Amino acid sequence: MKWNTIFRKFIPKEDKFFPILGDMSSNLLAGSEYAVKLTQVSTFEERREIQKTIKVLETKGDGLIGFLYKELNDTFITPFDREDMHELGESIDNVLDRINSTSKRVIMYQPKELPEQFFKMSKILNEQCKLLQMAIEKLRSVHKNLKSIKELCDHLHFLENQADDIYENFITDIFKKQDQDILELIKEKEIMQELERTTDYADNVGKSIKTIVVKYA
Amino acid sequence: MKWNTIFRKFIPKEDKFFPILGDMSSNLLAGSEYAVKLTQVSTFEERREIQKTIKVLETKGDGLIGFLYKELNDTFITPFDREDMHELGESIDNVLDRINSTSKRVIMYQPKELPEQFFKMSKILNEQCKLLQMAIEKLRSVHKNLKSIKELCDHLHFLENQADDIYENFITDIFKKQDQDILELIKEKEIMQELERTTDYADNVGKSIKTIVVKYA
Amino acid sequence: MKWNTIFRKFIPKEDKFFPILGDMSSNLLAGSEYAVKLTQVSTFEERREIQKTIKVLETKGDGLIGFLYKELNDTFITPFDREDMHELGESIDNVLDRINSTSKRVIMYQPKELPEQFFKMSKILNEQCKLLQMAIEKLRSVHKNLKSIKELCDHLHFLENQADDIYENFITDIFKKQDQDILELIKEKEIMQELERTTDYADNVGKSIKTIVVKYA
Repeated sequence: MKWNTIFRKFIPKEDKFFPILGDMSSNLLAGSEYAVKLTQVSTFEERREIQKTIKVLETKGDGLIGFLYKELNDTFITPFDREDMHELGESIDNVLDRINSTSKRVIMYQPKELPEQFFKMSKILNEQCKLLQMAIEKLRSVHKNLKSIKELCDHLHFLENQADDIYENFITDIFKKQDQDILELIKEKEIMQELERTTDYADNVGKSIKTIVVKYA
Repeated sequence: MKWNTIFRKFIPKEDKFFPILGDMSSNLLAGSEYAVKLTQVSTFEERREIQKTIKVLETKGDGLIGFLYKELNDTFITPFDREDMHELGESIDNVLDRINSTSKRVIMYQPKELPEQFFKMSKILNEQCKLLQMAIEKLRSVHKNLKSIKELCDHLHFLENQADDIYENFITDIFKKQDQDILELIKEKEIMQELERTTDYADNVGKSIKTIVVKYA
Repeated sequence: MKWNTIFRKFIPKEDKFFPILGDMSSNLLAGSEYAVKLTQVSTFEERREIQKTIKVLETKGDGLIGFLYKELNDTFITPFDREDMHELGESIDNVLDRINSTSKRVIMYQPKELPEQFFKMSKILNEQCKLLQMAIEKLRSVHKNLKSIKELCDHLHFLENQADDIYENFITDIFKKQDQDILELIKEKEIMQELERTTDYADNVGKSIKTIVVKYA
């Protein structure tokens, strides 16, 4: 909370929000990178280590959103509609929560391996988080960035459709395989479902951004 | 967007919302009819064709809700509380989203067949959507329709309870069957869960309508 | 509804809300006690009986929240921000809804037995509901109770972490067991998932309370 006090002194009131949103999107991006790493290791110890790091990022995210809410509550004039900023913050936090729950499922279910579709899916998520960071950065000067923010959100949605296809094909495949180990099938299904849901939530951040942008169109 | 411009010219401002809500509920009703059809076909090609149509309706629904939100944002005087109309729109959109995800599960899991409870369940959903359309139409003259809207919502809730019973019995049955093919069991369970959730969401539209109506009681 | 009329006469307007919130938290606490009982019986008849009681409490909860919303709508000055009270009410209702859906899963899936982790988990939920009742009671004099409310919410979150651990270990265990009966595994997993989600929702009530409290800090 101390750096909040420092901010108040040096930065005009309406500019406090962008550093917080910036921190939130960087934190989310870091989380998505660990999600990719998680698909590339195979021992329980490595997985546990990565899951712990993700948990740390998630806790940091909780702090950041609490900070955002407090500022929204304490500030008379906010750069965008209060409830829209609330929703944007919440939507970012939800993605990191889902990354965390995906990584917890890896730890709980301990699948023998994570087929390559998990890597592909996590890369899409990571790509989404990069786009989100860019779009959120551009919100600082929303008027001149209207077009590019919309393009970023559209690309985000395009990635979500790719994620859908990977998910669909993955599920179809594992249920078609002969002599399938049903326990492994259930594990992979549960983890992939959560990972796919995470990309949905990333797309929702794009929707929150669009809600803000549309008011300036 | 073009017909919005036309509306503005001919229809008094506060009446723009009902045509949009009307379109949303018709679109949802169409979606529910395809959900019924989906339970009546068995080849992958037929299922895929229906799923694509549902996807088209869902995309149309996204357009309509975007349109509603924009109007809510641009209009000074709205027929009901802004946040209630927002929630009503969102709740309608959620049902169509779930119809879409149910149909995607049919495509992904490719169950050998969909037992007759799927037909029963989809018929209940379809019935719910008919009631919703009627209730939403009646919102135009909320004062004189208070009683009949409430009755429609109550009937909606009654149908939801029927859906609950079908779901409960279905799950109990498939887990009790001897020599059950576990892969087929998982597929049917996953699809039925989503279909049942869809009827829950339809009931939620009724709750959104009640929230509006209660303010006039 | 009749006692509302009585309230209006004898109690100053701003005090109507605490009795409702008090009733809601007592009702939830009762629900959590039946959730514990549900893990201690094994015949279908006993389970059905408990599930019916939980359903009655859930219906009562629906009435209470409707009552709360109506008061929020009719009252000009509310003790806390209207939307915060709305969210608090909703979050309490969500926990009871999840207790109900957990109990329905027990009835639907009819697991041969519920291993002792179900008892442990339901005891944690019950403990959470006790803390919630205390915290909600303390909201009546929020200014002098800031510290103790925060402590209750922190303890609530501590319990949620315990619930997480039980859940994680339970899932790991059932998937590791040799010669596992897969149908029983699926049943237990589905029920435990819902029970664990219930403890998450209980933690969310704590977050709603914190949102209120933080504005007085």
